Amino acid sequence: MFALDQLELPIVGAPLAGGPSTVALAAAVSDAGGIGSLAAGYRSADELRTQIAELRARTARPFAVNVFAPAGPSADPTVVASYRRALAGVGRPLGDPRHDDDGFAAKLEVVEAERPAVVSFTFGCPQPALVARLRAAGIAVWVTVTTPAEARAAVEAGADALVAQGVEAGGHRGSFDDAAPGEVGLLALLQLIGDARPVVAAGGIMTGVGIAAVLAAGAGAAQLGSALLRTPEAGTSEPHRRVLTEADRPTGLTRAFTGRTARGIENRFQRAHPDAPSAYPEIHHVTAPLRAAARADGDAEAINLWAGQAYALAVERPAGDLVRALAADARARLRSLRV
Amino acid sequence: MFALDQLELPIVGAPLAGGPSTVALAAAVSDAGGIGSLAAGYRSADELRTQIAELRARTARPFAVNVFAPAGPSADPTVVASYRRALAGVGRPLGDPRHDDDGFAAKLEVVEAERPAVVSFTFGCPQPALVARLRAAGIAVWVTVTTPAEARAAVEAGADALVAQGVEAGGHRGSFDDAAPGEVGLLALLQLIGDARPVVAAGGIMTGVGIAAVLAAGAGAAQLGSALLRTPEAGTSEPHRRVLTEADRPTGLTRAFTGRTARGIENRFQRAHPDAPSAYPEIHHVTAPLRAAARADGDAEAINLWAGQAYALAVERPAGDLVRALAADARARLRSLRV
Repeated sequence: MFALDQLELPIVGAPLAGGPSTVALAAAVSDAGGIGSLAAGYRSADELRTQIAELRARTARPFAVNVFAPAGPSADPTVVASYRRALAGVGRPLGDPRHDDDGFAAKLEVVEAERPAVVSFTFGCPQPALVARLRAAGIAVWVTVTTPAEARAAVEAGADALVAQGVEAGGHRGSFDDAAPGEVGLLALLQLIGDARPVVAAGGIMTGVGIAAVLAAGAGAAQLGSALLRTPEAGTSEPHRRVLTEADRPTGLTRAFTGRTARGIENRFQRAHPDAPSAYPEIHHVTAPLRAAARADGDAEAINLWAGQAYALAVERPAGDLVRALAADARARLRSLRV
Repeated sequence: MFALDQLELPIVGAPLAGGPSTVALAAAVSDAGGIGSLAAGYRSADELRTQIAELRARTARPFAVNVFAPAGPSADPTVVASYRRALAGVGRPLGDPRHDDDGFAAKLEVVEAERPAVVSFTFGCPQPALVARLRAAGIAVWVTVTTPAEARAAVEAGADALVAQGVEAGGHRGSFDDAAPGEVGLLALLQLIGDARPVVAAGGIMTGVGIAAVLAAGAGAAQLGSALLRTPEAGTSEPHRRVLTEADRPTGLTRAFTGRTARGIENRFQRAHPDAPSAYPEIHHVTAPLRAAARADGDAEAINLWAGQAYALAVERPAGDLVRALAADARARLRSLRV
């Protein structure tokens, strides 16, 4: 079973579902000595199977597959319809709201058959029986947590490791319940969770110094997301890349794009809908065509600009070089501390 | 001039204005080898002078005095009056709103005359001329910052060190402008600020592991606030102490008690006023009698329960012992890292 202490470099590539995730990025992170992730989210089970095959053709190193745990019950249709009406004036196409579980069972079948080194979950904790089944197949199970209570639940379910996601993180909060998205800062979260399980620290980690800090706090590895968004291997859209270089724009938490709390660089769309309802994935499906059209137009003010709080430190550099350089910086920092 | 690298232990005692701050606590932290703080906030200049004399009678070690920078312009009186009316039904005494600068000039005179090792500022950055005058008197000037922009302003004003306050921190946000309170997590903030000046890291640091992490991130010291609230030397009220042991209550940011954004353990009063206006110190003066009465009644649901996000890790232990133990834990952690 894969364990964090087998990593050559203490770096996990974040899954980055919804565009930035590519086979090339996962391969580059794993080949550099970290562990890359494929994002199963928003893809079909067949696409996932194809991506796993492509990744295996590129690298023999371990990798992770990230799967969205099924969302909660359907949202109130009148609330969703009301939000959809508010978007109708934007002049871009809208989708129809739809509740689904992102093909959870089918993707789990692919995972069980393909046996990646790790399967990580976001948006919830799999049942103990499922965790046991995956582990019996030799797959390490990681669960994303944002609060001490979620960490306890994941430990009880039998998770091998916890991905502790601080409020600094870009993209969706991994909270089990979007009605109460954890807002704990990473360093507070790491201290509160303690060492019941190995921990991957996530949220705002952009530099070697940041990696050194989470290792000192007890994490076995640092998960990098925004730090990878400007690498050539990432599928980050052109308008998204452009805004990532405008370093002084603040990030904020929003449900405007998907109906689920996520952190993005504040833009016109995000500011226009400060009270978007919690209705995932219904609102994701409503805004998907709007965002695709805006992305095609290069309009950064109408797309989700997922980014962590320290995105301004992201650099344009091949992912493998970046991972190696950050790990070397972290090692140098820890060695330089006179204690 | 006092510099962080002169500290025997890399620990700063937070000022903890408004009750928990005592001469005994500052003395215990300084005597243990850290540096304790006196809180000038909410005290008169004469009281500050007396406290400095009392502290000097207890210890010959360096200490810091924390001063509130003057608040911005007066709040709209109709907004304050409306909030005051909303509180009238609570059945406890209310004060009259008043705008003041907390005796800034008089306290600065005391500081200049008494020459503590350090003067730290919260709620804003002193003018460069004032920084220069204090430094000319041999007093190191620290400025609390919550964003990279505030850090740049403090460096430009000539500050000797920055107190980088992450969103995890309990009590008031140190933001220069309460209309835009910085919400950056500590580890992201430390990376964004970099090393233009020595940094004291503040926010959610409760353990030796937490201290080790901020040192690895480049801080020269960790500032402890909530970690000290349960020490016998602290002036923490009985109801506040009681709630600090109820580890699973969440914290949240609120303006309900003072009209300025602060983090406290969520209670009835805080939940009842989610949209309290930004009007400091007017609302502080309005609620002060209400809070004093509730405190006297032991009613934890109507007082400000300032606490950082990891307050659940606070322990009841003499402050000097605690500071020494945490510093030893931090050192042991950094030594144990195999790099």
